[in-house]
Amino acid sequence: MCTLLSRVAVCGGTHGNELSGVYLVRELQKTEKPLEEEDELVSVLVVLSNPRAVQQCRRYTETDLNRCFTHATLNGPESDKTPYEITRSRELNSLLGPKGSPEAVDLICDLHNTTANMGLCLIAYSDHDWICLHIFRYLQRQMPDIPVRYIHFDFPPKEAYSLESVGKHGFAIEIGPQPHGVVRSNIYTTMKAGVQHVMDWVRFFNSGTIFEGGSVEVYTMVKNIDYPRDSETHSITAAIHPQLQDQDFCLLHPNDPLFQTFSGETLRYKGKEPLYPFFINECAYYEKGIALSLARRKFTNGECRAHSPWFHNSKVIQ
Amino acid sequence: MCTLLSRVAVCGGTHGNELSGVYLVRELQKTEKPLEEEDELVSVLVVLSNPRAVQQCRRYTETDLNRCFTHATLNGPESDKTPYEITRSRELNSLLGPKGSPEAVDLICDLHNTTANMGLCLIAYSDHDWICLHIFRYLQRQMPDIPVRYIHFDFPPKEAYSLESVGKHGFAIEIGPQPHGVVRSNIYTTMKAGVQHVMDWVRFFNSGTIFEGGSVEVYTMVKNIDYPRDSETHSITAAIHPQLQDQDFCLLHPNDPLFQTFSGETLRYKGKEPLYPFFINECAYYEKGIALSLARRKFTNGECRAHSPWFHNSKVIQ
Repeated sequence: MCTLLSRVAVCGGTHGNELSGVYLVRELQKTEKPLEEEDELVSVLVVLSNPRAVQQCRRYTETDLNRCFTHATLNGPESDKTPYEITRSRELNSLLGPKGSPEAVDLICDLHNTTANMGLCLIAYSDHDWICLHIFRYLQRQMPDIPVRYIHFDFPPKEAYSLESVGKHGFAIEIGPQPHGVVRSNIYTTMKAGVQHVMDWVRFFNSGTIFEGGSVEVYTMVKNIDYPRDSETHSITAAIHPQLQDQDFCLLHPNDPLFQTFSGETLRYKGKEPLYPFFINECAYYEKGIALSLARRKFTNGECRAHSPWFHNSKVIQ
Repeated sequence: MCTLLSRVAVCGGTHGNELSGVYLVRELQKTEKPLEEEDELVSVLVVLSNPRAVQQCRRYTETDLNRCFTHATLNGPESDKTPYEITRSRELNSLLGPKGSPEAVDLICDLHNTTANMGLCLIAYSDHDWICLHIFRYLQRQMPDIPVRYIHFDFPPKEAYSLESVGKHGFAIEIGPQPHGVVRSNIYTTMKAGVQHVMDWVRFFNSGTIFEGGSVEVYTMVKNIDYPRDSETHSITAAIHPQLQDQDFCLLHPNDPLFQTFSGETLRYKGKEPLYPFFINECAYYEKGIALSLARRKFTNGECRAHSPWFHNSKVIQ
C-alpha cells in the first residue's frame, strides 16, 4: 500500500521557545551520521526550523511560522516587507517539499511543546493516513507509561497551515506540560524516546515488517472556545476553571465548570454535546483567542495493514 | 517600634508576562475605592509597573525593570537612548519613593510568578525587618494549605535592585509554579488571598493589634548555579535533573543529581555544604545564567513584638 519511507525529516524549533524540540534537534544534529554512513533505506534530515526565533527564545519573530504552510502563503508574492517567517516557510518548502509534489520528503515529524497537560499527542491532518496511524499505534504500545493520543485537524491539504503538511506524510509531536522557554528533563526524555520509536518504526517498515491493522482512537477537533473578554479592552476576564485545568481529554459535559472569573465567579460550558477538551490553557493561544479546543472521539475501524513493498523478508508486528 | 503603615503600594506586572500579578492588579484597580471612601488609616496604591511589557506579554521590552532600582541606575544620566524600563523605574521611584527618603511609601508588595515549584515566597532584602517577618508569619498561619517561605537576599539597600526596595519596607510575593504568559486559577486565587491577608495584617497593625514575637524560618540566598554550557555557543547542554526538578526547598546534599545532559548523563552537585535549592528551572533565569539558587536556612530568634503606636486599643494576635 505504500512505497518506502526513504526520506524523513525531524524538525524542531518551529516555535523558538518550545525547548524540548530545540535541544533534541541540536542533540540529533551532533550525532547525525555523515551521508555515506547512513542507513541505506532511509535518509534523515534534522532541521532547526526557525533559527531566528530560537536565538531570541520566542515563538516567532514576526508571524507564526507554523501558520505559513498553506498553499496561498507559500505561493504569495514576496517583497522587502515579507515577514521573516514567510520567507523561511518558503525555504523550508524548497528543502522539504515542494508541498504536494512528488519531490516532497516522505515523512515530516515536527516537534512541539505545550503548556497544556496533554501528554504526547500526534497531530495530523488526516484520520486515514495509515502511515501516521500505524506510527501512533506503535508509539502507544512502546510507551505504556505516558498517555499517547492522536488528534485530527480536519482541513483540506491546501489549507493545512503547519510544517508537517509539506511532507507526503506528516504529523506534529506535541508534548506537555512544559512552560515555553523552559526545558524539563522528563518532557525532553519523552520526546527523545518518541522520536527514536518513530525512526524504529520507519526502519521496520522499510525493511518489510508487516504491521497488523486494527482500531485506533482518534480525537477530531470540533471547535475552539475563547476566554471571556472585556468588550472594550479585549483583555481576558477569567482563567480556566481549576476543576478543568490540566484535565485535557477528560470528557467535558454540558454545564461543567469552564472558567473562573478574576472576581471569583464560575462560568459553565454551555454546549449541548459532551466533548473532549485539549490544549487547555496553552500559553501561545491567548493571542489566538483559544482558551481550549474541543474534540469528538471516534474509533477508526478497518483491518488495513501497513507494509512496504519489501514483504519478501517481512515479519509481523501486532 | 514602628509608626503606622499609612501608605501601601501593591504592584504587579513588573514583569509583563507574570500574569497572576497583572490580572490581580487589574481586578484590584476595578474595585479600588475612591480616595474619599478609603480606610482612614491606610491608603493603598495599586500599580501596574510595566504597562508596555504587559501589553506585549513579555518580561520586559528593553531591560529587566526589576533590576533597575539600584541607587546607581535610579540616579544615572538620562538620554534619548535610555531604555524604557530605566525611564519607567525613575517614574516609579517618583511615585513610590524616592528610595531611601522619608517620602517613600511605607510598604511595597510586588507580585511575581515563577515557573519553579516554590509555593508562596516572600522575598526581601532584610532578615530583621520585623514588619516583613510578622507579615510572613501571619501569611503562614492564615494559609496553612500552601507552603509559605521567606527568602532573604543579603544585599545592602543601595545595591538592592528590585522594586520593593523603593519602599520603607517591602517584599516581593513570588508564587509558582505557573508558566509565564499563562494564568492558572489556583495560583491567581492564592495570590489574591495572600494580598488580602497582607492588607488585613496592615489594618490590624494600624489599629493597634499587638503581634507576638517568635522564631521564624528564613532562607538566605548563598549562591547561584548555572547550567552546563557549550564553551563555544554558550548554549546549555543539560537540563535540571528529573530528581531535582520541582524539589524546591528540599535539602540538596553533596553528590546529589543536579543536571541531566541532553545525551543522558547525570551530573552531580559538587558543593561541600548541603543547601536548600530554590528557583529551580525558572524560565527567566536561563538568560541570567541561573539554573537554580541555593540558600542556607536559619531560624531568627527574638521576642520582638510588632505593634503600632496605637496600642491603647490593642488586642494580641499570636
